[in-house]
Amino acid sequence: MDYRKIKGEEDSMSASQDDIESLQEKHNPNSDAHLPRSVPSLGKRSDWRLKSFVTLALTILTSSQAILIVWSKRAGKYDYSVTTANFSVEALKCAFSLAALVRIWKKDGVTEDNKLSMSFDEVNVYPIPAALYLIKNLLQYYIFAYVDAPAYQILKNLNIISTGVLYRIILKKKLSEIQWAAFILLCAGCTTAQLNPSSDHVLQTPFPGWMMAIVMALLSGFAGVYTEAIIKKRPSRNINVQNFWLYVFGMIFNLIAICVQDYDAVMNKGFFHGYSFITVCMVFNHALSGIAVSMVMKYADNIVKVYSTSVAMLLTAVVSVFLFSFHLSLAFFLGSTIVSVSIYLHSIGKPQR
Amino acid sequence: MDYRKIKGEEDSMSASQDDIESLQEKHNPNSDAHLPRSVPSLGKRSDWRLKSFVTLALTILTSSQAILIVWSKRAGKYDYSVTTANFSVEALKCAFSLAALVRIWKKDGVTEDNKLSMSFDEVNVYPIPAALYLIKNLLQYYIFAYVDAPAYQILKNLNIISTGVLYRIILKKKLSEIQWAAFILLCAGCTTAQLNPSSDHVLQTPFPGWMMAIVMALLSGFAGVYTEAIIKKRPSRNINVQNFWLYVFGMIFNLIAICVQDYDAVMNKGFFHGYSFITVCMVFNHALSGIAVSMVMKYADNIVKVYSTSVAMLLTAVVSVFLFSFHLSLAFFLGSTIVSVSIYLHSIGKPQR
Repeated sequence: MDYRKIKGEEDSMSASQDDIESLQEKHNPNSDAHLPRSVPSLGKRSDWRLKSFVTLALTILTSSQAILIVWSKRAGKYDYSVTTANFSVEALKCAFSLAALVRIWKKDGVTEDNKLSMSFDEVNVYPIPAALYLIKNLLQYYIFAYVDAPAYQILKNLNIISTGVLYRIILKKKLSEIQWAAFILLCAGCTTAQLNPSSDHVLQTPFPGWMMAIVMALLSGFAGVYTEAIIKKRPSRNINVQNFWLYVFGMIFNLIAICVQDYDAVMNKGFFHGYSFITVCMVFNHALSGIAVSMVMKYADNIVKVYSTSVAMLLTAVVSVFLFSFHLSLAFFLGSTIVSVSIYLHSIGKPQR
Repeated sequence: MDYRKIKGEEDSMSASQDDIESLQEKHNPNSDAHLPRSVPSLGKRSDWRLKSFVTLALTILTSSQAILIVWSKRAGKYDYSVTTANFSVEALKCAFSLAALVRIWKKDGVTEDNKLSMSFDEVNVYPIPAALYLIKNLLQYYIFAYVDAPAYQILKNLNIISTGVLYRIILKKKLSEIQWAAFILLCAGCTTAQLNPSSDHVLQTPFPGWMMAIVMALLSGFAGVYTEAIIKKRPSRNINVQNFWLYVFGMIFNLIAICVQDYDAVMNKGFFHGYSFITVCMVFNHALSGIAVSMVMKYADNIVKVYSTSVAMLLTAVVSVFLFSFHLSLAFFLGSTIVSVSIYLHSIGKPQR
């Protein structure tokens, strides 16, 4: 449950400019040297490489995140408050963004694109993703009255469909017929890979449970798509500034969550009560995958993010075979096959322009 | 087990010319009236209708076949010998073919295309499908030393892949990349729909079991594709003549199977010992689905046949909900979704000519 709660936050995380800069220098050592270091200056090939790199990073970080959860569960019960962990992740991401900005200011000076201050017109959309996640996380407490944890894991795959639909509606980007088919397959494949003997419980989910699951999927999808819209609205805007503001509001809304849910525990036992080495690792891992999510949003899109996290889910299971001697089920092999075909179809099904 | 054994025979069954004639008259009441009643005279639209009709017929007959099995199992154990039932099916199909031919001869006279006699050059390929099925059915007895019945059901889905591969190699017909992807999905989807808590046993299948399953899938796929090649080699040849010879050899090879497996039982208890009303229904149903398979081979192809029988499998489960109050699993819904997407992809993925 802790994992799921933290995981919901991953879509609003920060990127360090260090990473972007080093990537640009690495892949375009000469051609772009005289240009200001902004995204539009990247060549097509470099763009493709950057996109691949951030996607790979997101996949590996998301996968290692899940492995940390399993590891921590094996190490024994951990008893920290999840809301403070979420807040710490947001704060860490804010710190990353600021550190990267300070470096940039020292190097390039303060420009219109990398200055921290924003007009009200620009900043007024930034609280929305964080607010949506807060609502979704609060709803999460109520849905467990209707479904059990394994069923909830299954229902979470509705996120894939909601992201696709909202991506189409809000960002007005087209997916081809084949890509839609691929997206349905991705959802079916991920669910198949997660099947276990108790999965059928989900079919007994009562109507309010279904409604809440759908609303939560829509909230999560909307937050993701909206974040992409904010980040892409002004492509020349430095991503660290955009992240800074996203995460400032993330901190504020997580503070509200602490007050609502864990006020007594924090007051009595302290903010960092129950934190272990592994908790700190998890917070850092979340902040790092935040960097990756943010970069995927800037240089790719929500569709790539969904594919990336789906592959991460499969990767986690394979790695767990070696780390924790997990057994892979037939359903897992079938699901992996379906997800692989989905990725193939998505790539060959690009809409003609 | 009885079902599976009988089912293996379905690919070499007979069509009644009555059905083809009535179809032609129904769909092309005027335009083709002055032409001889042969397939090439059918218009494009009529051709499409005929193809759809036979595909639908095959789907419904295959599905009702499976329902008869469940029904008969519920009605109590039946104790007839499966080899004699297979022989009866072949004999019934032969009778259908002959009856249809007699009608045609009375109407149109004996022509080069509808005469019963064949040159050795033409007839020498006709025993091959029946021989392949015999080998496959004999192998079936040995594979159960390595896998249990539910695992065998899962492994049977390898037929889908082997049919696709052999269709490409032997008939040299091209499938587009999307259609190949669709075919892999069909296999994965059918397997997913059949998943149950004991399906994972299949992963413990020892190496000889896998080898035998693959050989059996290849034999079955080869027999199907080879039958199509025989039937399509001379398109103007009346299908009842083609079927007559296919089923004559079917009878001969099934006679061998009776001698090998059930000689004592037949000698002591009689040929039709243990036959009940439901056994007779099943034999008739098999003969009728034989008509449908044969027509699908003539007017469509093995790919359509595979899709048709896969949909029949899903249809059986849905009908069983109402007839026998079966419960559909989440895996079934996922599998059905994947099969549906596969059908869609197959239809939009036609190779460009």
